[in-house]
Amino acid sequence: MNYKNKQFYLKTRPQGVVTSEAVPVRERVISEINEGQLVIENHYISIDPAIRGWMRDEPSYMPPIELNEVIRSTTVGTVVESRHPDYAIGDVVYGVNGWETYSVSNGYFLTKVPENNHHPLHYYIGVLGAVGLTAYFGVTDRSGLKKGETLLMSAAAGAVGSLGGQIAKLMGCRVVGIAGSDDKCERIKSLGFDDAINYKTTKDMTSAIKEACPEGVDVFFDNVGGEILDAALMNLNQFGRVLFCGSISTYNAVDPVPGPYNWWQILARSAEVRGFLVSDYFDQFSSAAQTLGGWIDEGKIEFKDEIVEGFDQCLNTFNKLFDGSNQGKTLIKIR
Amino acid sequence: MNYKNKQFYLKTRPQGVVTSEAVPVRERVISEINEGQLVIENHYISIDPAIRGWMRDEPSYMPPIELNEVIRSTTVGTVVESRHPDYAIGDVVYGVNGWETYSVSNGYFLTKVPENNHHPLHYYIGVLGAVGLTAYFGVTDRSGLKKGETLLMSAAAGAVGSLGGQIAKLMGCRVVGIAGSDDKCERIKSLGFDDAINYKTTKDMTSAIKEACPEGVDVFFDNVGGEILDAALMNLNQFGRVLFCGSISTYNAVDPVPGPYNWWQILARSAEVRGFLVSDYFDQFSSAAQTLGGWIDEGKIEFKDEIVEGFDQCLNTFNKLFDGSNQGKTLIKIR
Repeated sequence: MNYKNKQFYLKTRPQGVVTSEAVPVRERVISEINEGQLVIENHYISIDPAIRGWMRDEPSYMPPIELNEVIRSTTVGTVVESRHPDYAIGDVVYGVNGWETYSVSNGYFLTKVPENNHHPLHYYIGVLGAVGLTAYFGVTDRSGLKKGETLLMSAAAGAVGSLGGQIAKLMGCRVVGIAGSDDKCERIKSLGFDDAINYKTTKDMTSAIKEACPEGVDVFFDNVGGEILDAALMNLNQFGRVLFCGSISTYNAVDPVPGPYNWWQILARSAEVRGFLVSDYFDQFSSAAQTLGGWIDEGKIEFKDEIVEGFDQCLNTFNKLFDGSNQGKTLIKIR
Repeated sequence: MNYKNKQFYLKTRPQGVVTSEAVPVRERVISEINEGQLVIENHYISIDPAIRGWMRDEPSYMPPIELNEVIRSTTVGTVVESRHPDYAIGDVVYGVNGWETYSVSNGYFLTKVPENNHHPLHYYIGVLGAVGLTAYFGVTDRSGLKKGETLLMSAAAGAVGSLGGQIAKLMGCRVVGIAGSDDKCERIKSLGFDDAINYKTTKDMTSAIKEACPEGVDVFFDNVGGEILDAALMNLNQFGRVLFCGSISTYNAVDPVPGPYNWWQILARSAEVRGFLVSDYFDQFSSAAQTLGGWIDEGKIEFKDEIVEGFDQCLNTFNKLFDGSNQGKTLIKIR
């Protein structure tokens, strides 16, 4: 056994934008594994905003990535060695591994791609993985969204946002998206969003949301935080919900970032902010993935991947998540 | 008809602490009323932190007090004139009126004290009114508190806090209070609180809460906001709830005050912030007041009033709410 494993690892904790000094590449050789372990040759690596949070040494829903550890990420790949009773060479698997060409796993957080799979492999770290499931459980369950209500989505052209909006349309809701370019706004409208707001060219977001949501906002599905969240709070209906899914506007911040300035509106509107982690729904993942797969097969939802070729592109591609230039689910194709 | 009515009114919108320049006293004569109106001679006036919010020209759960209007407040008094079919001279009533010796009412938000009443009249603007009902519905319903859970209460020696904590004890919960003096801490412990934290003498509130709540915080009943809220968020259990009832630490602020710096913890802990307005429970007020009255009669809950004599004391007494010197429900006895 002799696998040359290239890895991005956490050399120092980054301040602000992640540099290649803080997260360089190294090569490690995998020459043996223990009983209960297996080696995966990764084909696709997921590039997600949430990874920025894991680089911080702060309490969160997962422990931080330790210094000198590989950057944590989901991957899909093929088992090439196994001393694990449940996995054989040739099995195709996905789960929480890292920005690396090979992963040594003990089987935790690992799932086999179904044998009768007819979808592209990378779907399992996208629309059929955490991204799709986040949109699905966020919209259909945690937000409390009901038919006929209005859903406002931030980062609406992103992977979670574009899927979540389409799912809300399937539920019979009015759906308004917020995105960072006219192109993105057109794209989400072509996906069925009722309206879209380009926050980069809109001066008064509070008024723009009011205009696009004449009956107010029942659910604000928030991936962004900051000023957009403040504007959304001013448009929330009584008993409205903020589904707190992410806060990408703050992930690269160096100084502490406070909660919304319109915090009082949560009380004034008898509203709720609901923290949402897709991992809370782990026991329902496989049935939800089946539902999502069915919707894709029937053409009821569309999903856009942005596949970047070349392992070396992991960090560059990650940093582009924060400048708004990407559309859809971003991932790396290794080879 | 000729009633000399003394009123505190909103001359200008205050910046920071409310001065007698912003809220002076005037005398107005009530010489006639319209069909459907009545005149109440007020006996007790409620002095509440929430009134500070109503002086601001900002969107909230009630419209702001307009310039030149009387300061809005609940009162209890006796009907002395009536052209309203449901009210007769001599009826004792309570409801939303103002800091004034007489109130002209059209009957909205007005309730009669039950004929078989055996409680002191001022209870109807305290433990049997908005204050008691806020504690009751906040703890028993909106917070989702369950037997065996831990409730953390801010402003725990205050009117709402001291009642809410006692109600949570009746439910079989661990209850920890935060208050601003050792005296207050002793008092709430004598009411049955399991532990108390003096935030004025505690340097590290996050650690102090952790110590007092060894199994974490399931519900944080927040009347204060600010740094105490931030410390509570760091101790919230997974699926914990912040009952957002008030934010007295920010009411006199001149500059905009942001939400908590530990905002991210809402997501990281799958927690919820629930805005809470007692008015949402209006249809259950009378049955809840009966329950509360029963608990008082049985000695299951204790309630402390701070009754200040003299109408002229309204504003001084109001300002003392913000320096932490009061204990229990504050009200003015007019005559």
